Parts: sequence; C-alpha cells; structure tokens
Amino acid sequence: MTETMIHPGPLAVGDDVADRLFRTARTTSQFTDEPVTDEQLEAAWGLAKFGPTAMNTLPLRVLVVRSAEACERLAAHMNDGNKDRVLGAPVSLVLAADPAFHEHLDYLFPAVSGVKEQLAPAVEAREAMARKSALIQAGYLIVGLRAAGLAAGPMDGMDFDGADAEFFGETGWKSLLVVNVGHAEGEGTSYPRGPRLSFEQVTEVL
Amino acid sequence: MTETMIHPGPLAVGDDVADRLFRTARTTSQFTDEPVTDEQLEAAWGLAKFGPTAMNTLPLRVLVVRSAEACERLAAHMNDGNKDRVLGAPVSLVLAADPAFHEHLDYLFPAVSGVKEQLAPAVEAREAMARKSALIQAGYLIVGLRAAGLAAGPMDGMDFDGADAEFFGETGWKSLLVVNVGHAEGEGTSYPRGPRLSFEQVTEVL
Repeated sequence: MTETMIHPGPLAVGDDVADRLFRTARTTSQFTDEPVTDEQLEAAWGLAKFGPTAMNTLPLRVLVVRSAEACERLAAHMNDGNKDRVLGAPVSLVLAADPAFHEHLDYLFPAVSGVKEQLAPAVEAREAMARKSALIQAGYLIVGLRAAGLAAGPMDGMDFDGADAEFFGETGWKSLLVVNVGHAEGEGTSYPRGPRLSFEQVTEVL
Repeated sequence: MTETMIHPGPLAVGDDVADRLFRTARTTSQFTDEPVTDEQLEAAWGLAKFGPTAMNTLPLRVLVVRSAEACERLAAHMNDGNKDRVLGAPVSLVLAADPAFHEHLDYLFPAVSGVKEQLAPAVEAREAMARKSALIQAGYLIVGLRAAGLAAGPMDGMDFDGADAEFFGETGWKSLLVVNVGHAEGEGTSYPRGPRLSFEQVTEVL
C-alpha cells in the first residue's frame, strides 16, 4: 500500500484497530485449517446487531454453512471462480434478507404500534425494505467479523435464485452475498490491493 | 442496556472500541454546536473506502450538506419527523449510489479488462450493482464516522426521487439515505435503545 492511500486524519481508535477493521484488512480467499467457532460468529453478531437499521427492523439473516455436504451444496450455486473459495473456507455465511422481518416488529419497534399489521399485506415493500437494511447490516457484519479476529471474504458472483430455492424455500429469505470466514493464510489473498477513490472523487459539498 | 444484550464473546478489539463503534453507539439526533471538519469526514472515508465492494466498484457517493441554505433544501425532501433533524445537525450527508461507477473501472479493477465497456450499455444492471455495493458501503461509512470520533444519525424517511431531482440531475446519483453527523449532546437521543435479535434468531446452521 502506498503511503498516500492512508489519510492521516484524526481518529478516535488506534492504528491497530483502523488497520484490523479497514486499512490492511483484505478480502480473504486463502484460509488456514483453524476452525471458526460458533462463539466467534456470535461475537461478531454481538457487535453488528447494534448497527442502526430503518425502524430497527434488523432484517439480515445468516445461513451458516459448515458441513462438507452443505459446502458442496452452496458451491454448486457459486460462479466458477467462487466455488473453490467456498470449499476452501472453514465456514461460509450466506447473508440474506428476511421479507418477514415485520413479524418481529412488536418486539423490535414498540414505539409505533400497528406497523406489523400495516406491513403484512405489503409484500413488495417488505422485500425492498428488507434488502436495503440487510445490505447495510452486511457492512456492519463484515466489520464485526474482523473485530472478532476473523478474516472475511465477501463474494457477489452466484446464482441467487438457485440458492434461494435450495436453502430458503421455507423461510422465504433472499440471498444477498456469501462471506467466507476463517483465519487468513498469510495475507489471505494473492491479489495486490486494489486502488481506492479519494474523498474528493466521491463527494460533492453544498 | 441490559447485561444480556452484550454477548461476552472473544473480541480482537478492546471494549472501548466495541462500545464506540457498536455496543453503546446510538442513532444520534441531538447534536452540540461543535462543528464537523472536512478533515474528520475525510478521516471517516479514509477508513470506509477500504471496505470490500463487488469488483472494487466503490459506487458510494456522498453529498455533504453544510450551508444553511443547502440544509433547508434537503429538509424539504425529508419526512416530517426528519426535517428538524437535518436542520439541527452540523452536517448532513446524503449517501447515494453512482450508476456511472463503471467509468472508474479501468483504474479500480484493472485485473479484468473491458468491464467498463461491457457495462456501459447495461444501465439497469449498473444501477442495481451500484445500489447494492453502495448500501454495504453505507454500513462501513457509519462505522467509519464513529471511528473518526463522530456521532451518526442515519435516516431512511425521505422523498428519494425528489432529492435526486433536486441534487443529482447532472450526476445521476441515486439517493439511498441521509446521515446526520456531529457530536452528540448527551446520549444524542431521548429514545431508549431498541432491543435486538439474538444470534439464534437470525441464523440457521447447515
């Protein structure tokens, strides 16, 4: 990484944390054999669950793919370049959105009563709401996994409809992406880090 | 917060960091008068930009709304309960997706040549891709703002089409949400923290 890629701005966390969560963290595809415990995944969720979502809907759901048989089933729905990544990871997580999130709203969002009933017939609106907040939560969870000491390798290239039919026929969850999780072998990837856009390139100021 | 809401799992960051970024951080709507500097926003982006996106597309864009006049223009597109929140924040960020992200791909994703040209005619696909990765990046940025010592108040209730017509007629950016940014007055909110779903409630294991 060139020095200019790290902006020396004021941070409220240490360099070690900034590096672990963002600056030197990499999309990992090469993992050691060290297993990932349920406790570690739960620790990551124990952070990510606090990230804000619209109306506290928390629509992100996670299919934890652990067994060899389940990994083969998931790999069958991945694009070619991603199949081996699933098979080589200790655990793969299918991150999904739950359009039936409204079932939990009496508990999650008691401030406004009747939202659950209002949303019940609005299937398309629920699916869009679920997808939107769940993707934001995917960002929280990737950071949360790293904060729990794990390496994460998110992947977008897959047959989403095929995976939904295979895994989510009963729940109605909608797959969004797959994240391979484990401990990195070396840097965890043989690719050089891609460049990034600068603050000036992504902002307009009014 | 009840004790049971914080799971004592193994973390690779300190409790202070876990609290600042997730566990005690709140959606902030009450800010002090302390200004937010460009350097602080740039520091947040300096972290969030490293979060992974599909094909390193980095489609998140940010309209920084600072001037009193611009805040009034933005507030006009917010739902009633959110107007005062924009007017009371030192800075509001309109997070948006840029469907023209492909223009940067020769630089951002040199591993595969020709992607820029392939995507150029695929307007709808580009918009969906931009929206998906930009929402994940919104998650990174909210954490990044907190890591830069700022309080964040994301809001979903607004007239997105109206805001796009007002602010993004030339760029074609698509607004996703607004994040008020500043320094929290007290806890930054008068609402009690909402409950969260447990690991068991959001996962299935295979």
